[in-house]
Amino acid sequence: MINENFLKLQSSYLFSTIASKVKAFKAEHPEVDVISLGIGDVTQPLPQACLEAMHKAVDEMSSSDTFRGYGPEQGYDFLRKAIIENDYIPRGVQLDMDEVFISDGAKSDCGNIGDILDTRCSVGVTDPVYPVYVDSNVMCGRAGDFVDGKWSNITFLPVSAANRFIPALPQEHIDIIYLCYPNNPTGTVLTKEQLAKWVEYAIREKSLILFDAAYEAYIQHDDIPHSIYEIPGAKSCAIELRSYSKTAGFTGIRCGYTVVPKDLGQLNALWNRRQCTKFNGTSYITQRAAEAIYSPEGKQQVRKTIGYYMDNAAFMRGKLTEMGYEVFGGTDAPYIWLKTPEGVTSWEFFDLILHKIGIVTTPGSGFGPSGEGYVRLTAFGRHEDCEKAMERFKEI
Amino acid sequence: MINENFLKLQSSYLFSTIASKVKAFKAEHPEVDVISLGIGDVTQPLPQACLEAMHKAVDEMSSSDTFRGYGPEQGYDFLRKAIIENDYIPRGVQLDMDEVFISDGAKSDCGNIGDILDTRCSVGVTDPVYPVYVDSNVMCGRAGDFVDGKWSNITFLPVSAANRFIPALPQEHIDIIYLCYPNNPTGTVLTKEQLAKWVEYAIREKSLILFDAAYEAYIQHDDIPHSIYEIPGAKSCAIELRSYSKTAGFTGIRCGYTVVPKDLGQLNALWNRRQCTKFNGTSYITQRAAEAIYSPEGKQQVRKTIGYYMDNAAFMRGKLTEMGYEVFGGTDAPYIWLKTPEGVTSWEFFDLILHKIGIVTTPGSGFGPSGEGYVRLTAFGRHEDCEKAMERFKEI
Repeated sequence: MINENFLKLQSSYLFSTIASKVKAFKAEHPEVDVISLGIGDVTQPLPQACLEAMHKAVDEMSSSDTFRGYGPEQGYDFLRKAIIENDYIPRGVQLDMDEVFISDGAKSDCGNIGDILDTRCSVGVTDPVYPVYVDSNVMCGRAGDFVDGKWSNITFLPVSAANRFIPALPQEHIDIIYLCYPNNPTGTVLTKEQLAKWVEYAIREKSLILFDAAYEAYIQHDDIPHSIYEIPGAKSCAIELRSYSKTAGFTGIRCGYTVVPKDLGQLNALWNRRQCTKFNGTSYITQRAAEAIYSPEGKQQVRKTIGYYMDNAAFMRGKLTEMGYEVFGGTDAPYIWLKTPEGVTSWEFFDLILHKIGIVTTPGSGFGPSGEGYVRLTAFGRHEDCEKAMERFKEI
Repeated sequence: MINENFLKLQSSYLFSTIASKVKAFKAEHPEVDVISLGIGDVTQPLPQACLEAMHKAVDEMSSSDTFRGYGPEQGYDFLRKAIIENDYIPRGVQLDMDEVFISDGAKSDCGNIGDILDTRCSVGVTDPVYPVYVDSNVMCGRAGDFVDGKWSNITFLPVSAANRFIPALPQEHIDIIYLCYPNNPTGTVLTKEQLAKWVEYAIREKSLILFDAAYEAYIQHDDIPHSIYEIPGAKSCAIELRSYSKTAGFTGIRCGYTVVPKDLGQLNALWNRRQCTKFNGTSYITQRAAEAIYSPEGKQQVRKTIGYYMDNAAFMRGKLTEMGYEVFGGTDAPYIWLKTPEGVTSWEFFDLILHKIGIVTTPGSGFGPSGEGYVRLTAFGRHEDCEKAMERFKEI
């Protein structure tokens, strides 16, 4: 009766293991003010423009004249239009409305996109990796079997300081490749030139790139692409996933979107059919909030919050570097990838700093074998907490 | 590359065909005030209690002290608790918090629940049927092949006036059975005794019932079960899907829930893992709105709106019966299932009343072969429109 692929899932409950370790520590040391630089959730309030838009949308629901029932499964045109005009046209990318699909978040889309792809396709992911890419493929059988610590149908492409966090193109053919840039968890980026090599590969190999750009709003440097479609030809080989979670603090109100270009052939129609059948659109109120991100006030407010987080990142990068740590990321992404001291594993370092200075990080090895020897720090905390945390780091 | 099961989908674009026929009619007859009794969307505003709860929740998002980021994938405890205490305990059903999963709507859950079930399972649906049950099984290959107008792995269980809309138990073993009561599209119900036979069957055959109770709030009679768990033993053989869409006008703000009892064995853990991996929780603001449905004011307001729609249903049933039509449903559900005149097909009757009296219905045959000879009328319209519609029916 059950889908037995689920039984193959590795119980890599990374965040629940962290949570239980933190809970135990807090119980033993109630006097310690534990600072979390662990989970990648935002802390700053929603932009004022979004709040106003939501109040207004709630009011519309109070009268039968302005009430909105079922919306389009693909999202409202007002939001799809705002996306194309603001996120794409200024970067030289033309999209049609029916290539943009609004959703309740990139995690849903990223998990569900596999519905329209053959379960026999081979898969490539960078290592370390956002676990959803792997687990969603395990669940439908596409990952194959877990043999000797590896999935038989998934190629892991290591990224670490050794290759300056630039994944090498695979030697073999891979059907579906997940790329996440700016990267979660490493906080590193690819330049246009580096990303163009992947587009070339995908076109040559007739592969599909699933490009997760959830963190694009954090990009500060001009040569870093915000969209894979800035690379010529990418529309014929890539689906792009976007999220408002980190852009505008939407982690709790849920909205993202996915671009499936018609140049990809049937995939556009298939995703439309998938969404029409298994999804009923995103909350109207949430979509109005998302639209407000693109208003002049919204843009300014979003820039301010992102500036706040990126100041945290720059501050922590600076302090940690001063203290002699080797750090990566954090210049175009809200994550800092910190190399643990020689001979200290990710979990050992996690335990050490939790117990010695009361700071929660995320062990890099939880994201994949090539994450061993790193921990991830997020810049999403309050600035005062980042300051306190850096003071405490001096004590190690 | 693509999932070729999608290519087997029948292009039964029921509602888009209706939409294009209506569009063409309106273009030819701009003078006619077309009344829609077609699509099952609500028209009355949200309950005041829900609006207030949403304004409050939006305000919480304006300060970092009360801001809510990622919520639990399974939904907030405040809502799960309210559900158990209000929807289940008063009906003698005990549930644990971790058996209740909040979602963005029953359509998503209904489409996604197949993720945790073996794609080789056989499937049973009543005919006529809500198309999502069939199409979501086609997409993952579970439906088999479409041969001679039938899916090789789906058993259709006819319901019509001939069997008083009580589906006969299947002669053979079926692994997964979808039951929707109060029924969409027929508006008919099963008594506890009639539903108990299905629970017995499922226990005996080790089958799983997917019980869609999206319309339970419309039940007016005591002997009609609101939950399948009112039948002893159902927890060991049934998953229940619930929605706030019709209960409280949430079609545009998106919330529902699914109960996966632990008596079902691994399915509870599998659904939890599925949701944690491929879903990131429902909007906090929406969940606060849903919680408000259970407040004393919320309950009263919901009752009032449901009363409004059920008055429409009773009114239309009465008038249509007076006019000599044979009608079913509409006593414990917001849908009326009208028998077309002798020898007139569903689509013929649809066309006739669209062109003659400017009223939009849904042709029964669009929901399956046994829907032939019926049209569906919804009670979700404004009362004045229902009155106008019944006046016009006299002209046929």
